[in-house]
Amino acid sequence: MWIQRQIELRPRPRGFHLVTDEIAEAVPELTSLSVGIATLFMQHTSASLTLNENASPDVRRDFAEWFDRAVPDGAGYFAHTLEGPDDMPAHIKASLTGSSLTIPVASGALALGTWQGIYLCEHRDSGGARRVVFTASGESANIRS
Amino acid sequence: MWIQRQIELRPRPRGFHLVTDEIAEAVPELTSLSVGIATLFMQHTSASLTLNENASPDVRRDFAEWFDRAVPDGAGYFAHTLEGPDDMPAHIKASLTGSSLTIPVASGALALGTWQGIYLCEHRDSGGARRVVFTASGESANIRS
Amino acid sequence: MWIQRQIELRPRPRGFHLVTDEIAEAVPELTSLSVGIATLFMQHTSASLTLNENASPDVRRDFAEWFDRAVPDGAGYFAHTLEGPDDMPAHIKASLTGSSLTIPVASGALALGTWQGIYLCEHRDSGGARRVVFTASGESANIRS
Repeated sequence: MWIQRQIELRPRPRGFHLVTDEIAEAVPELTSLSVGIATLFMQHTSASLTLNENASPDVRRDFAEWFDRAVPDGAGYFAHTLEGPDDMPAHIKASLTGSSLTIPVASGALALGTWQGIYLCEHRDSGGARRVVFTASGESANIRS
Repeated sequence: MWIQRQIELRPRPRGFHLVTDEIAEAVPELTSLSVGIATLFMQHTSASLTLNENASPDVRRDFAEWFDRAVPDGAGYFAHTLEGPDDMPAHIKASLTGSSLTIPVASGALALGTWQGIYLCEHRDSGGARRVVFTASGESANIRS
Repeated sequence: MWIQRQIELRPRPRGFHLVTDEIAEAVPELTSLSVGIATLFMQHTSASLTLNENASPDVRRDFAEWFDRAVPDGAGYFAHTLEGPDDMPAHIKASLTGSSLTIPVASGALALGTWQGIYLCEHRDSGGARRVVFTASGESANIRS
């Protein structure tokens, strides 16, 4: 059994944003899979996805702080500057965190750990809406009923 | 055909640890898949998984050295400090290396390159045991026999 | 339906190289999948794969610039130096970008965003040819015709 859906995440300010519930609500069919694998895939090169702590907003703030220091806006050694001082850092941050997440499915839900949440990593100042492709395959619980 | 198992990795000190054999021994059913994809998924936000050199222990020591310099314990710009000076760096290191590995299965085994091994990346001083969900799907060699 | 192929990427100089077309041409069977998931897996520990901007060569040049500054050749704190000053940095860069890509398949093709391309990240000065395992599973469009 295969599930595939385009999910559009509304525009968000630069930073790290918790989108676990928004993703889960977009794929109600997931409840029919007893076991499987789900992939979330970001179709952009200046935003990305990662899993991290789902509780303290300070963690997400500190992510932004660290990444902005590690890959500074407008660094003098960048050649690709036409699209603004936040563009080339956005590309590098996107590759450091990654374009996709692969998450096991168990008993009809994403098998996240207790403290894990899905972060939309928005690396542009004005990135706009972001498209994510959700794809899952697995065994349907109903097959055996 | 689907395989899914919870694997508990025993507590290890902070650092990068080779766990390839431990993982392989936990999923003996893998030998029945002729072709497939396996996913290893870390259910924590301060430990992670990566693939790298399986021979020299110095490589794993140098990983720890580099990551500790790149994301320093107790850096003054972190706001999330309640859980100790190693906590916020652990979250960032976990997202830099990633929560999951996706590895092809060929002829009943993980299709790793000659020098590739699975690293448990333990970013906390006292992280405790770590849960990994192993999920694989593929074609069973027996179906055709 | 499962597809698995070994792809050999010809030797390239150190840097970030766009290989999207080369990968797509190596797996013509992909056109038969209506929906699925594909995994590209690098069987080496000093080269890696990432997705990023497929247009400006300056972006790939800036990737090399940033990674070379973040993980400097011959840094004095590395112990694993036997294989040359570019070896240990190559291992770390490989884990920062990652050994594999997971990309959804839709309507017989990789469902990449408009600006996304597949980068071979060659972190050694003379890395030689690189082996990538391509694995995909999905539903065949023909099943329903």
